[in-house]
Amino acid sequence: MKNAAVLGASGYTGAEAVRLILGHPKLKLTALTAYSRAGEVYSDVFRNFAGQDLPALVTADEVNWDEIDVVFACLPHGASQETIAKIYNRVETVIDLSADFRLSDPELYADTYGRPHDFTELLSQRVYGLSEFARDLLKGAKLVACPGCYPTCTMLALLPGLAEGLIDPERLIVDAKSGVTGAGRKASLSFAYSETTDGAQAYAIGAHRHAPEMDQAMKDFAGVSAKVRFTPHLLPMNRGMIATCHVELSDGVSVDTLRAHYEDTYKSEPFVHVLAAGQVPQTRHVRGSNHCQIGVFADRTPGSAVIVSVIDNLTKGSSGQAIQNYNLTQGWDETLGLTGVGVFP
Amino acid sequence: MKNAAVLGASGYTGAEAVRLILGHPKLKLTALTAYSRAGEVYSDVFRNFAGQDLPALVTADEVNWDEIDVVFACLPHGASQETIAKIYNRVETVIDLSADFRLSDPELYADTYGRPHDFTELLSQRVYGLSEFARDLLKGAKLVACPGCYPTCTMLALLPGLAEGLIDPERLIVDAKSGVTGAGRKASLSFAYSETTDGAQAYAIGAHRHAPEMDQAMKDFAGVSAKVRFTPHLLPMNRGMIATCHVELSDGVSVDTLRAHYEDTYKSEPFVHVLAAGQVPQTRHVRGSNHCQIGVFADRTPGSAVIVSVIDNLTKGSSGQAIQNYNLTQGWDETLGLTGVGVFP
Amino acid sequence: MKNAAVLGASGYTGAEAVRLILGHPKLKLTALTAYSRAGEVYSDVFRNFAGQDLPALVTADEVNWDEIDVVFACLPHGASQETIAKIYNRVETVIDLSADFRLSDPELYADTYGRPHDFTELLSQRVYGLSEFARDLLKGAKLVACPGCYPTCTMLALLPGLAEGLIDPERLIVDAKSGVTGAGRKASLSFAYSETTDGAQAYAIGAHRHAPEMDQAMKDFAGVSAKVRFTPHLLPMNRGMIATCHVELSDGVSVDTLRAHYEDTYKSEPFVHVLAAGQVPQTRHVRGSNHCQIGVFADRTPGSAVIVSVIDNLTKGSSGQAIQNYNLTQGWDETLGLTGVGVFP
Amino acid sequence: MKNAAVLGASGYTGAEAVRLILGHPKLKLTALTAYSRAGEVYSDVFRNFAGQDLPALVTADEVNWDEIDVVFACLPHGASQETIAKIYNRVETVIDLSADFRLSDPELYADTYGRPHDFTELLSQRVYGLSEFARDLLKGAKLVACPGCYPTCTMLALLPGLAEGLIDPERLIVDAKSGVTGAGRKASLSFAYSETTDGAQAYAIGAHRHAPEMDQAMKDFAGVSAKVRFTPHLLPMNRGMIATCHVELSDGVSVDTLRAHYEDTYKSEPFVHVLAAGQVPQTRHVRGSNHCQIGVFADRTPGSAVIVSVIDNLTKGSSGQAIQNYNLTQGWDETLGLTGVGVFP
Repeated sequence: MKNAAVLGASGYTGAEAVRLILGHPKLKLTALTAYSRAGEVYSDVFRNFAGQDLPALVTADEVNWDEIDVVFACLPHGASQETIAKIYNRVETVIDLSADFRLSDPELYADTYGRPHDFTELLSQRVYGLSEFARDLLKGAKLVACPGCYPTCTMLALLPGLAEGLIDPERLIVDAKSGVTGAGRKASLSFAYSETTDGAQAYAIGAHRHAPEMDQAMKDFAGVSAKVRFTPHLLPMNRGMIATCHVELSDGVSVDTLRAHYEDTYKSEPFVHVLAAGQVPQTRHVRGSNHCQIGVFADRTPGSAVIVSVIDNLTKGSSGQAIQNYNLTQGWDETLGLTGVGVFP
Repeated sequence: MKNAAVLGASGYTGAEAVRLILGHPKLKLTALTAYSRAGEVYSDVFRNFAGQDLPALVTADEVNWDEIDVVFACLPHGASQETIAKIYNRVETVIDLSADFRLSDPELYADTYGRPHDFTELLSQRVYGLSEFARDLLKGAKLVACPGCYPTCTMLALLPGLAEGLIDPERLIVDAKSGVTGAGRKASLSFAYSETTDGAQAYAIGAHRHAPEMDQAMKDFAGVSAKVRFTPHLLPMNRGMIATCHVELSDGVSVDTLRAHYEDTYKSEPFVHVLAAGQVPQTRHVRGSNHCQIGVFADRTPGSAVIVSVIDNLTKGSSGQAIQNYNLTQGWDETLGLTGVGVFP
Repeated sequence: MKNAAVLGASGYTGAEAVRLILGHPKLKLTALTAYSRAGEVYSDVFRNFAGQDLPALVTADEVNWDEIDVVFACLPHGASQETIAKIYNRVETVIDLSADFRLSDPELYADTYGRPHDFTELLSQRVYGLSEFARDLLKGAKLVACPGCYPTCTMLALLPGLAEGLIDPERLIVDAKSGVTGAGRKASLSFAYSETTDGAQAYAIGAHRHAPEMDQAMKDFAGVSAKVRFTPHLLPMNRGMIATCHVELSDGVSVDTLRAHYEDTYKSEPFVHVLAAGQVPQTRHVRGSNHCQIGVFADRTPGSAVIVSVIDNLTKGSSGQAIQNYNLTQGWDETLGLTGVGVFP
Repeated sequence: MKNAAVLGASGYTGAEAVRLILGHPKLKLTALTAYSRAGEVYSDVFRNFAGQDLPALVTADEVNWDEIDVVFACLPHGASQETIAKIYNRVETVIDLSADFRLSDPELYADTYGRPHDFTELLSQRVYGLSEFARDLLKGAKLVACPGCYPTCTMLALLPGLAEGLIDPERLIVDAKSGVTGAGRKASLSFAYSETTDGAQAYAIGAHRHAPEMDQAMKDFAGVSAKVRFTPHLLPMNRGMIATCHVELSDGVSVDTLRAHYEDTYKSEPFVHVLAAGQVPQTRHVRGSNHCQIGVFADRTPGSAVIVSVIDNLTKGSSGQAIQNYNLTQGWDETLGLTGVGVFP
């Protein structure tokens, strides 16, 4: 058993990490930290844990880090790198769910997040944990940067085609949609029930912070230099994310060939499932699970296709992939603690 | 006052037509028809009409058509043309909300809807009522085909740019999203609450029946021959439709120029509003109204843009535009009966 | 035409008042006030008003009150009485939607709202505007206190039976449910989408501020001294309120007798509809309208009954009834500006 | 390992049973049956199971019952007893989730369900599995009738107080609310998205089939003869059930005494949690879990109280309790396969 701490347990990704760790056969939840809500009983902060035997919710300073094996850092960007730097030498493994270690180039980080990166030495050691494409690098890694939810959903849809040269990297249009939990747990008029239910909207058009991360992943995992055109939307649902990728097929490539390649790429994956022709992925079928479902479709004009990918933004898009990554660092079966299927309906 | 009949009043577009006609100063609701639910009290079929003084719900055969001035036909395609043909010479004006008279080419109709068109003579007389672009044709028209909801939402977003040559007709990708009322009122597992809430999905990818209609509208109203790549989605909301149009700017055209052209095009329109730079349209703001809101945005790569359009699929996307079109046939103020703003929150 | 001002137009009841005033044939919207959002364009605060010609959003101090005929005060309690006191002599009529003038007894106000009432002289002049039961008093009234949403919904369900002695005032249990808009427009974690969607909860059990107001209404309108046992719930819907009233029939009274009395009481009412036996009211059927639907049912044990009442909390429960009350003060047709039926679906 | 079959796996309670069995350490899913959907791949019927290794979906006749240890029967009432009777002697244990064996009196069954009970001999052997109150009886039981969702939620709230004489059995008013999954998986206009979202309603007032079952449970487990006054509601949420129980305290009993008794009764229960004073249960906190949360509150008038209980209708209200009951029949730890906490948000 490894002792696990969740940093930033008062947010949604923190709570999802706690939920998953409780069901993990080799992890013992040893510490829970928060900032403004430190001192509260955790099941008062997240009532779904009523009746569970959980550690007290404390500040990061109150934790004895020497007894912690693995840290799941669910902090805002900026705060995450600072806290990780402080405890880095006292723990065995750090799985960071924030944006702080996703971009390998500190300048790109500064441009994207509006602040310099203060721990570039750490940054140079991190492994970018898009699990299915980074298994070898993850084995034994000490610092793992978990991808953003949109990059996870989108890259699982695009990388196989790009790596094999089946789709045109210059013509990638990703129209993505997310549930409201992606905005985190906060008091905000923008995410108030009456302002977000029963309606839909785009946001951050042409300017979302996850787009440069996608460019990086395409370069690192498929060897292509390209800029994805990315438009996210906010939908009236709790969890769930869908990336609808409008692509152009390379010359001579058919949609059936493309789908066959995806089926082949993912045929042994425990969490990524390519649906049969005609079956359209739905976010509700992966709700609460670490699964991803992908569909490949012909578009209307010859040579064009649509690849659709769905995940739960809090699970495969965040805390589930974090657990999967930790399993991989330890050389364990990567499904440990993640065997649950989607909670549908 | 003109006497109005609603054919197919037991469906959602029928009910929306009834709701709007009740608030129209120059229309008197004289007949309501249904098929399987004929004989029922209308306010038992749609309880929101409790307490209103409404005609009985009868079959089409029971109506004295000679006393009807205008028919709003809210029937399924196929059934609509048959019924309209029967009563065509007994009424003054027919506003058809079905798909039966949208496509001017009978062969395209047959290909798209899987059945021949049986009334091509009528078809040749119809006016396609995309209100803002067909005012002159609508004046005095006897038979109006109201556009589909997706074509309405999308064409309002694309036509100004296409007509002016500001965007490339060869590179049009429309990623659209609709609320569940678009599926009509029916007992269907696919649209059961538990199968459609709290999740999202694409459908009819590359194969939706509204796509050929969009091609036709682009030809008729902007003079361009092109095929839109169209992917619709089903969202967990009741009313509302959003078309996210991913476009390429023509050489030398900036996003600001594009937006200025949209502002100019629609500046006097009572129902179409171009939002200021940075403001993103939301479907909830047009809920229950005949309004359309449009935003124009730069995408990530130079020369690319995103145009977002939102409507209420049952109002501007169907029954509201039908009323607007009838107003135009009569030479009335086109806002009669449609002055309500969006019911938000 | 009368000149109307909406005080506190940046909240939900304010926006609903604006929406309804725009459709009122005898009201001209002349001033809109807000506090922190003064200076903003109103259609930026509520995007559903895009394209409408509306007054600027200003502070209350910036309004020339001498040109205002009627004020709809949509302010928080406390703030409302203060502002009303300042402008009272400069306007003809004040319709207050806050809680400040609902309770006629200043001590009860202080107990209930945790602050003294500072304008008891004004308080003594006010008319409590439960429209259907206060028509005579409302005619010519200068200051109208609009009932709370729960009291409106509940009293329409209970008063006829109580006034006639058909139900036992000592055994009134009201289990009520409200949509989230009832909480107002504010940044609050408690009303964040992810904390309020797809779930339900009771709140303020045994301690809601609307309960004493109900007791007062039962005394004033039905002459009974009683305390209603009132439990409200928060439901995952935007608008809508349902009061499920569990009552005991007086000796010898049958459910059919009870229902017949309700039918008789409300038979000429434009906004209150008693459904036929077996028909159950649904909040969605009154959405966005000033209507109330009531059903009367036998409960399981002899002598017990259930009376169910539904309204839209923002309309009949607030701004719609406010307009209705103003119409009554002026001796106008009380349906002016309120003829819209429920927006369903 | 025991071999498990799920009868009626194409419904929601069937799917929930499958989901839970997959996570159960001592159960092997060996057979899945359906009627009209037999022959389909199970993950096509419920897409959330994509990628799982599952038995084929067959008719009940195609199963080799001799190799099955335990049957979870998720069939409609009537069909359930017939199928169970056929296979009863070939399997070790039958856990029935239908209504067929809930009522011990065949006449009451006939009155309530409108058909005679055809297998009264079986009926006389069944154990009514309200887990927390039937542990001794369940041990070794061959046929278990799982309680209905409403009785489960309500009895957990009422039985401790009734059994101890702390509340008056003659004055029990239960106002309950359920998510839409409670209606099962079927094509029905009444449960279509657009007819059930964004609104609420009561139904089956005074006449719900679960009410007699509650009376029976009060008699069997608390020794009181009483009729609960029960009014259910349908809410726009997927899963979740709340029972708001309006009760009268016995003479001299305080709310604190009542709460203390509930805390004491449930203090060692793994699935039932009594919240601290002032904390109100929310259905979303038990979503997807076998947990129940209970709150005890003072009502407005002296001597009255409100007890609120929340469960997930598909889990503790159906398939979760079924697993719990099977665990108890086997003498296993009753939490096997049920350790997951609520999926919140």
